Amino acid sequence: MMKPDWIALDWGSSRMRAWAMSESGAVRASVECEQGVSQLQACDCESVLLGQVSAWIAPGAAIQVVACGMVGARQGWVEIPYLSAPCAPLGELVSAPTTGDQLDVWICPGIKQSQPADVMRGEEAQIAGLLARHAEFDGVVCLPGTHSKWVRVCGGEVKSFRTFLTGELFSLLADQSVLRHSLAGDGWDSAAFLDAAQQMVSAPEMLTSKLFSIRAESLLGEETAAASRARLSGFLIGAELAATRSLWHEGAELALIGAGRLADLYVTALGAQGRVVTTYPGDELVVAGLSAAHSNLNRP
Amino acid sequence: MMKPDWIALDWGSSRMRAWAMSESGAVRASVECEQGVSQLQACDCESVLLGQVSAWIAPGAAIQVVACGMVGARQGWVEIPYLSAPCAPLGELVSAPTTGDQLDVWICPGIKQSQPADVMRGEEAQIAGLLARHAEFDGVVCLPGTHSKWVRVCGGEVKSFRTFLTGELFSLLADQSVLRHSLAGDGWDSAAFLDAAQQMVSAPEMLTSKLFSIRAESLLGEETAAASRARLSGFLIGAELAATRSLWHEGAELALIGAGRLADLYVTALGAQGRVVTTYPGDELVVAGLSAAHSNLNRP
Repeated sequence: MMKPDWIALDWGSSRMRAWAMSESGAVRASVECEQGVSQLQACDCESVLLGQVSAWIAPGAAIQVVACGMVGARQGWVEIPYLSAPCAPLGELVSAPTTGDQLDVWICPGIKQSQPADVMRGEEAQIAGLLARHAEFDGVVCLPGTHSKWVRVCGGEVKSFRTFLTGELFSLLADQSVLRHSLAGDGWDSAAFLDAAQQMVSAPEMLTSKLFSIRAESLLGEETAAASRARLSGFLIGAELAATRSLWHEGAELALIGAGRLADLYVTALGAQGRVVTTYPGDELVVAGLSAAHSNLNRP
Repeated sequence: MMKPDWIALDWGSSRMRAWAMSESGAVRASVECEQGVSQLQACDCESVLLGQVSAWIAPGAAIQVVACGMVGARQGWVEIPYLSAPCAPLGELVSAPTTGDQLDVWICPGIKQSQPADVMRGEEAQIAGLLARHAEFDGVVCLPGTHSKWVRVCGGEVKSFRTFLTGELFSLLADQSVLRHSLAGDGWDSAAFLDAAQQMVSAPEMLTSKLFSIRAESLLGEETAAASRARLSGFLIGAELAATRSLWHEGAELALIGAGRLADLYVTALGAQGRVVTTYPGDELVVAGLSAAHSNLNRP
């Protein structure tokens, strides 16, 4: 393989993805692994990254790496101060310390918000990617995930945002709560998902009671594991939709950044509320955003 | 010690409490241990119980044990079918199998409800204890805990009830979620608790977002660990109060069964809503309820 000109890196709590990039912005190769920042010490970051990308590095010259995500958090490679919303999604990149001479690493700052208190690290690169494709985007961006985010974007800026613990709650409840006894297997009941989401949109105050009802219905033999699993997801995503109603209920454009099953669930749940969404693959947008950051960094 | 006439036993998922009882209903001694049913196999129950109460057993005659709680669940000593609400809190006791001749064990059935699906095992004995003291009780009973319950009681019957995952969510989030980084220590900020509870009573749909805000405020240096811990509790208890408003907002009598810090939090949060509660110690009521069950069992 021809050596890439630079490396785009999305390094979050639980996962690393790296792309071998040409100067023109084309992706030549990519790697993905489960070595998230949360499992590492700051001093390990350089060697772990080299372990994944050494094949991409030509001898004798450091390769530029442009990174986003929790790699810039206190528990990451080096803590990068947040930008403050409202702001453009891309701020000045900060250099990360290295001991060797193969990597020249630059990390995007995350964004904080004071009222209400909120933070993001990584999503700003995806939003930058969306704006690289649609500079005039004016609306709301939904980014499902461990910590789902809803972001108002207008005039090229992140105006405000709000994070939900949806994905992390699903994992904790499915794997470690009393509900785990009711969710064995990986079946799925779409009707149960939609019914649960609708219940939460209508009566979100019932969330912590409805969660227990999953266990009760299973104990009373009234629900399959596939339905229980779908209900848990529906209750949590429905609660998120209840809280963001003012964001998706109005006429503004709504972009969903994500892919696969989780993105499909949000599209389905919003569709049941009569809301049509435009979906963008997160991988492509993060590469587009990091490419924009790379261009900014190397602008003469 | 004079040997007791019978043993009252409250054996839940995570804890066992046993009382040495006289025929007249007086408590002569008690033991408590962390050997909950969820850590045992059914076949271990007899030996574990004997390990705790052998000093109370006179040679040559089996002692009667009257038990409630998860000991009667599928994962307990023996699965006892549920009563169906509406019903009196005490049903016919079921004998548990033993291999030795020292114990004569009887277990109270729990109560199920079909619409909405819900179950209880153990709380019915506390409600029976409340009715043993106040046969005319007509109102709502709140039982805070891992799975908090709100129960309508009238005419000596459990009319309906609803369970909330409040306590289990607190433990999961405090110990295993991203919030754990913000809750170190065991300090407490009462004002933060009340503020969080009020926020949820006013806007319960924001629960899963407010949970993340605990982490964000801590990261931005705006909140102490004591305030973060109190806020987590306040958000979860406040969400429970938002969902049960119709139960505590009306004029009916409201009894809270519990003790210690958790009961105090519910009393404080309800007090801030202008609702005065009568509190009953759970231990005393469960003994009173098991005494009533013991009398029923031995009625000629």
